[in-house]
Amino acid sequence: MLNVIVTDPPRADLEQVDKLAEYGVATVHEAIGRDGYLGPAIRPNQQGARISGTALTVLCWPGDNLMIHAAVEHARPGDIIVITTTSPNSDGAFGELLATSLRAHGVRGLVMAAGLRDTQELRDMAFPAWTASVSAQGTVKETPGSVNVPVTIGGQLIRPGDAIVADDDGVCVVPRLDVPKAVTASAARVAKEDKNRTQLADGALGLDMYNLRPKLEKVERISYAEYARRAGEGS
Amino acid sequence: MLNVIVTDPPRADLEQVDKLAEYGVATVHEAIGRDGYLGPAIRPNQQGARISGTALTVLCWPGDNLMIHAAVEHARPGDIIVITTTSPNSDGAFGELLATSLRAHGVRGLVMAAGLRDTQELRDMAFPAWTASVSAQGTVKETPGSVNVPVTIGGQLIRPGDAIVADDDGVCVVPRLDVPKAVTASAARVAKEDKNRTQLADGALGLDMYNLRPKLEKVERISYAEYARRAGEGS
Amino acid sequence: MLNVIVTDPPRADLEQVDKLAEYGVATVHEAIGRDGYLGPAIRPNQQGARISGTALTVLCWPGDNLMIHAAVEHARPGDIIVITTTSPNSDGAFGELLATSLRAHGVRGLVMAAGLRDTQELRDMAFPAWTASVSAQGTVKETPGSVNVPVTIGGQLIRPGDAIVADDDGVCVVPRLDVPKAVTASAARVAKEDKNRTQLADGALGLDMYNLRPKLEKVERISYAEYARRAGEGS
Amino acid sequence: MLNVIVTDPPRADLEQVDKLAEYGVATVHEAIGRDGYLGPAIRPNQQGARISGTALTVLCWPGDNLMIHAAVEHARPGDIIVITTTSPNSDGAFGELLATSLRAHGVRGLVMAAGLRDTQELRDMAFPAWTASVSAQGTVKETPGSVNVPVTIGGQLIRPGDAIVADDDGVCVVPRLDVPKAVTASAARVAKEDKNRTQLADGALGLDMYNLRPKLEKVERISYAEYARRAGEGS
Amino acid sequence: MLNVIVTDPPRADLEQVDKLAEYGVATVHEAIGRDGYLGPAIRPNQQGARISGTALTVLCWPGDNLMIHAAVEHARPGDIIVITTTSPNSDGAFGELLATSLRAHGVRGLVMAAGLRDTQELRDMAFPAWTASVSAQGTVKETPGSVNVPVTIGGQLIRPGDAIVADDDGVCVVPRLDVPKAVTASAARVAKEDKNRTQLADGALGLDMYNLRPKLEKVERISYAEYARRAGEGS
Amino acid sequence: MLNVIVTDPPRADLEQVDKLAEYGVATVHEAIGRDGYLGPAIRPNQQGARISGTALTVLCWPGDNLMIHAAVEHARPGDIIVITTTSPNSDGAFGELLATSLRAHGVRGLVMAAGLRDTQELRDMAFPAWTASVSAQGTVKETPGSVNVPVTIGGQLIRPGDAIVADDDGVCVVPRLDVPKAVTASAARVAKEDKNRTQLADGALGLDMYNLRPKLEKVERISYAEYARRAGEGS
Repeated sequence: MLNVIVTDPPRADLEQVDKLAEYGVATVHEAIGRDGYLGPAIRPNQQGARISGTALTVLCWPGDNLMIHAAVEHARPGDIIVITTTSPNSDGAFGELLATSLRAHGVRGLVMAAGLRDTQELRDMAFPAWTASVSAQGTVKETPGSVNVPVTIGGQLIRPGDAIVADDDGVCVVPRLDVPKAVTASAARVAKEDKNRTQLADGALGLDMYNLRPKLEKVERISYAEYARRAGEGS
Repeated sequence: MLNVIVTDPPRADLEQVDKLAEYGVATVHEAIGRDGYLGPAIRPNQQGARISGTALTVLCWPGDNLMIHAAVEHARPGDIIVITTTSPNSDGAFGELLATSLRAHGVRGLVMAAGLRDTQELRDMAFPAWTASVSAQGTVKETPGSVNVPVTIGGQLIRPGDAIVADDDGVCVVPRLDVPKAVTASAARVAKEDKNRTQLADGALGLDMYNLRPKLEKVERISYAEYARRAGEGS
Repeated sequence: MLNVIVTDPPRADLEQVDKLAEYGVATVHEAIGRDGYLGPAIRPNQQGARISGTALTVLCWPGDNLMIHAAVEHARPGDIIVITTTSPNSDGAFGELLATSLRAHGVRGLVMAAGLRDTQELRDMAFPAWTASVSAQGTVKETPGSVNVPVTIGGQLIRPGDAIVADDDGVCVVPRLDVPKAVTASAARVAKEDKNRTQLADGALGLDMYNLRPKLEKVERISYAEYARRAGEGS
Repeated sequence: MLNVIVTDPPRADLEQVDKLAEYGVATVHEAIGRDGYLGPAIRPNQQGARISGTALTVLCWPGDNLMIHAAVEHARPGDIIVITTTSPNSDGAFGELLATSLRAHGVRGLVMAAGLRDTQELRDMAFPAWTASVSAQGTVKETPGSVNVPVTIGGQLIRPGDAIVADDDGVCVVPRLDVPKAVTASAARVAKEDKNRTQLADGALGLDMYNLRPKLEKVERISYAEYARRAGEGS
Repeated sequence: MLNVIVTDPPRADLEQVDKLAEYGVATVHEAIGRDGYLGPAIRPNQQGARISGTALTVLCWPGDNLMIHAAVEHARPGDIIVITTTSPNSDGAFGELLATSLRAHGVRGLVMAAGLRDTQELRDMAFPAWTASVSAQGTVKETPGSVNVPVTIGGQLIRPGDAIVADDDGVCVVPRLDVPKAVTASAARVAKEDKNRTQLADGALGLDMYNLRPKLEKVERISYAEYARRAGEGS
Repeated sequence: MLNVIVTDPPRADLEQVDKLAEYGVATVHEAIGRDGYLGPAIRPNQQGARISGTALTVLCWPGDNLMIHAAVEHARPGDIIVITTTSPNSDGAFGELLATSLRAHGVRGLVMAAGLRDTQELRDMAFPAWTASVSAQGTVKETPGSVNVPVTIGGQLIRPGDAIVADDDGVCVVPRLDVPKAVTASAARVAKEDKNRTQLADGALGLDMYNLRPKLEKVERISYAEYARRAGEGS
């Protein structure tokens, strides 16, 4: 459904969403059942930022950033703007003026499957951004798309109001209604990992801790001499 | 026209070229009519460098850096060396010895659609470089190409003596004779953006500032309930 | 030969291996005859690290990190773990818990043709890593592969016990028995380059230093006017 | 929501769905408002096939085809099986035995964002397939995913029971409830194009037929001499 | 120089251009000094077509085919339309209606660095096409570009009126004024290859025919036993 | 070990190798334990060819086909020439003259991780070829590489004399000494698949035939209504 702006999408509870940033992308992704990761193509424009917020979604036509401007007046404090295009496009649809505008409306950062420019300026102003490309190529403002409709990035469906968490490992989406259990499960996972970390640092083996030895049952342990014999090397 | 070295290409006025670095890639690209950007594949080897200069162009065969050596004696102070290959190739044709040599002849930096090596050393010696790949793979010095002929990177034609501007957003070429108007137009754009930035920071909307509302005429604004109804979700 | 763990592969002399880190990837690659470079797709997770060690090789199934856990008990101090998958896969098979575990067993770092996660944590704990992708996508622990069999990354064969050297330019493998001559040849190359560097910094031309002028014999040197005439531009 | 099999998803009216194949992918995509195209990465395994059907969706783990087997018992005559993986993977998850099995249950063809094998056999048995990769690489049957949940390919959301149309141009999805209007709009588009085609074949210009001249208002028409003068070529 | 239409570009002699099709892409590319090949990304939409003609060039914005419509009235019999976009884009900017229109104006075929649709229809109507992508994704007609300005595809500069030759190996451009010598050199090359082919079919070695043995001077010929010894395999 | 020609590599028994072509790539790959597949990037230049033979390996420098010429005099009837480059390169290193020459020496076909040209001529002369790219771009004959040393394509190690099998699904390598057991295992697999095919055509489920139901234990079967409730759609 193209060419619509949804004006009042429901939204995850922001207090809960805020907690996701404490856990980070890998933990949240695992905690919700290995789901929601936007893939390795979405990379941070800075090092060390970790944020969470609610998705303000934008669907643009390639080489056109009209709808990003249209989205600003629908921004709510705590939002992260999530932008994609109707077909893959790397043009520089977003730069520091848009960041300035969005920050004025309470937006915390950017996730984009298109091109980012003014990358140094965005780092200087500490506006965190994750993007598929860096490109200075300019865009036009001609063709309408949509605001606050479901979009997909890296195969993941992102609905307006879903929770977004982003750090140096990339970006993860958590469906709006699943945020509370994501928070709980993330906390549990961190607690478990803290315990595992201590044991591993002491030299314990994951094979034993996670009970993986039965899965290696069919794996032969052989000497190098036997390996060389089988491979026929040097024979 | 392969296998030629052009010895005396005309060259943009260096004083004018120097001014382009003040404005940066995105601004210059917009100022010349959204033109000249070398695309998102050419990435900086360092963070925070911004330079401009005139193009010393080199066309190499894949896996061969003979012509880079041939180019050195044609370098002029203020040049940026611009290297490409006759077919796509990522081998490490350029490293710190060539940078040392070119710097001794007044060259300010490197733009390359091939592979760069000694990346840490280049950062240490503050020789700025933009490249399509980082690769330690060695090259031979066997097959002639050309120096100071027109080359293309990212779909853009670069003639020897054209102006090059490069920063964290990538690289832009400005045709030799267009440099003065690029400087003027960049200055005008920066002035306009300064004004826009102030307004946007105060909460003004780009929709209003750029008079974009007429372009959203056919975009329906609907409630989430209406959206859900149309999408047939849950019905 | 899948589904084997080789328990006692021979190994390059660690004292010799340690010396390779002094020279770095580009030098070692050239010194062994332009060989062993793992290609531009394997990139560092940090800036400025330079390490060497012996290869502890792991072959995993896509989306599965069972064999990394299996590899830990075969780690030897001085090893670098080298991980690939039976088909290309970017999932986040390796993170800080595995790094903690491997470090406890003396492993110096990671080279991986798959996905890395916990990238900030790995930088924080100074565990150096080189990887084809960054991805938080979780993996399962179900399907056996192999440990300490020959693997390939970037077209290079890596046997267990071979020497690995890695820095900002990427990663190079040196066959186990070739390490001593790699050390000697690297030292010779560095000495030669130091001399060349001095001359190049003084303005000497590589064309003369490397005796390349005969190779330019068939390259015509022409004026820009002649070039324009031939190209038919403006005629 | 991973690891579920939805047993009774609603489904587009098959009689209506059948009509979409008459119009083909490009027409249907345009008719529904330039929406639903699965992108250029999904290519046909044969030339000249054009089919439509309802989506039987499958979400697999990379390198694992367990869930394709699980999907067979949920197939309904008239379905097209639509398969993707939780992260990008090209392994050969589907071949002629699965095609034989699915055909026995009334499935009309395959759309897959993974790897296809037995490509010649599938052509011989006239089982039409569209796929992101051809690969003989075998898969395991270990890790559960889902059947008949929403999946995405090429940025498009595909719900079980949605209509799929596929031909030499690729694949398009039509949301279940939009099929009737897609049929009507496609018919209207074909009628209009038939009329346009006749005029264009007679030499009429699209500029006039589509009233595009106002959009070229700002485009200067200049002579080649003027162009050369401005470009400064030869001057 | 964007947003111009050049109305009367000079043009290679069509009678000479026609002869290029007799020789094909590989021969012509070699005959002009290994130049002009548009690279492996531009693939034929059909098998067995071989055409030549003069370039009618079009520069479009991504996702926009307005300028293709603008180009039609500047087509001249014998032209091949050559289309690219200001940034990489795979959308289906060209289909059978445009082919119908261009054919009515004497255009022989299409070369495009964007997306093609109606691929089966184009084969059915025998309108030969070479393209970077196949895509049904629709485009808008909003943003002006240029007609008959120089464009680049695969790193090659194509001026309006240059000769284009295309076959199953891809596409080659010959600068307008170089066509006569390209024809002569192609004929000479074919004659030489005919002679070589006969000798090679009789078992002669290229090593001897092309006098390559001196170039193998430094290549050691060793037995397999010696190879195995050096590689240290099995020792 | 670069710059060597191994003159007498051992070789798989040709009579056994010939049998592999009866089974095809997917079957042989599975029969040897899901190993040896050269990946989806190596595609056939023709449809319907299926061949097997012994590997004559060639390692070239990028953009250089000198060593292919050097390989011809080491060809043995029944060989398939297997060519790769020291770094990725798509140039057209192989065409119909080399095919003519190799055929005269008994070579059955080509497998190449570089560029192929004269594609139509090769189909016309029925010389089967599998390649990573089609490209007319010419190569030089300057820089030595190796003949009959181990090479890798798609992560697989190919030793001279190993068996190669190739069809529409791609290419598989079988280590020289493993060929007899590959033949036996392939025959067994075909027999088993014939039986399975009959059952599947009759409507049997793979879930039952392969005893997969226990692996779906943790997969919930839910109604669409329940799914919609959980997903919170429309709530």
